[in-house]
Amino acid sequence: MTALTRDQIADRIAAELGHSFEGELVAGGHYAPVARDGNTLYTSGQVPRVGTTVVVTGRVGEQVSLEKAREAAQICALRCLTLLRRELGSLDGIEKLLRVGVFVQCTADFTQQSEVADAASDLLHRVFGDAGVHVRTAVGVYALPKNASVELEMTALAKR
Amino acid sequence: MTALTRDQIADRIAAELGHSFEGELVAGGHYAPVARDGNTLYTSGQVPRVGTTVVVTGRVGEQVSLEKAREAAQICALRCLTLLRRELGSLDGIEKLLRVGVFVQCTADFTQQSEVADAASDLLHRVFGDAGVHVRTAVGVYALPKNASVELEMTALAKR
Amino acid sequence: MTALTRDQIADRIAAELGHSFEGELVAGGHYAPVARDGNTLYTSGQVPRVGTTVVVTGRVGEQVSLEKAREAAQICALRCLTLLRRELGSLDGIEKLLRVGVFVQCTADFTQQSEVADAASDLLHRVFGDAGVHVRTAVGVYALPKNASVELEMTALAKR
Repeated sequence: MTALTRDQIADRIAAELGHSFEGELVAGGHYAPVARDGNTLYTSGQVPRVGTTVVVTGRVGEQVSLEKAREAAQICALRCLTLLRRELGSLDGIEKLLRVGVFVQCTADFTQQSEVADAASDLLHRVFGDAGVHVRTAVGVYALPKNASVELEMTALAKR
Repeated sequence: MTALTRDQIADRIAAELGHSFEGELVAGGHYAPVARDGNTLYTSGQVPRVGTTVVVTGRVGEQVSLEKAREAAQICALRCLTLLRRELGSLDGIEKLLRVGVFVQCTADFTQQSEVADAASDLLHRVFGDAGVHVRTAVGVYALPKNASVELEMTALAKR
Repeated sequence: MTALTRDQIADRIAAELGHSFEGELVAGGHYAPVARDGNTLYTSGQVPRVGTTVVVTGRVGEQVSLEKAREAAQICALRCLTLLRRELGSLDGIEKLLRVGVFVQCTADFTQQSEVADAASDLLHRVFGDAGVHVRTAVGVYALPKNASVELEMTALAKR
């Protein structure tokens, strides 16, 4: 049994979630999916969009369950990985992850932003192992673009 | 016809908006307008303040229109550019922009945070061309300092 | 009279607040308290937790006063310092601070996010002097993990 590559693991997780991130990742206007400062890579904030549809919308704690919000965080994380992979050719080009920012569109009394973010952190550990460990800031916001339930941004370090 | 410098373009956009960012940019307390890590420059989050007045206040989607919010985002971006220009002497000292974070004080059902942020991204492209392309995270928050409608932070790379 | 070290000043401020940050700092899941990119150090977002208890909870401007929110920001800042100190052995290993992000769980009409953040900025100046000056983004959010009143993240530069 051969170990899977990071790219294969990411594809497998996407398939488990029933989604594919082939094709163009839509981004409007004069901004970029990834910016590079030396070996440090920043992604734009990603909502749980698949193709042209944001697949998890609504307010977490009300229309959207914790479980569904966790799935949204995973989709956002997979989108960030897809962007990094296109930038570098493969996720094997990543030395390690650095930071994840998680914004949850939730109710006033929702307190499980960390549990939502955990789904992304666990996914990243599954793909990268120890190289996937990162710092994290998770907060609950009032509204997100396209009524998305979660938005996630990522910072990573590329191999030299 | 001579091409305008970045500084001249920024001044022209400020004039078009009817504002000037000459004079002191107020910042209270023990924090700085710009911090530098090697060639990477971070600005503090800027609200749409001109002189001592925050000129766009209120909740976007209610008291504040999308158009007005976009103007606020432009003023915030111009303030960031003014800070970077003072740090470097001229915007010509910037190699490229890296990241913009946009926080919109909006209603619960406002979903056009990206359209607000687009106004800043377009302005930055106008000033810097391809060097102005950046990653971006735009979210809707519940409240901002001084009841500002928008707050914007910027990361840029200085020339060596 | 000998000048206090940064570590001693941080301990003294913690004692003044009636708290101690000895012992394990709890962090769940597959993320880290600190990530390092060369000499740049990022902390995870910290809530005002002492031991296993979040000591300042509730919405600022309603159940939580400005004064209490400022205390929360100080505790968050001390937690970040504790994390950096453990990473480096001592706060003397820090060249300078770079950035602080402050998220305040507040009411819709609370506009003093900067005044909350000032308490953290002042504390950092007390510990580091000029090396403690940083850029800052302060926003008001709808909800925070564990119903915390404040969350704070920090970026710092380590000595070479």
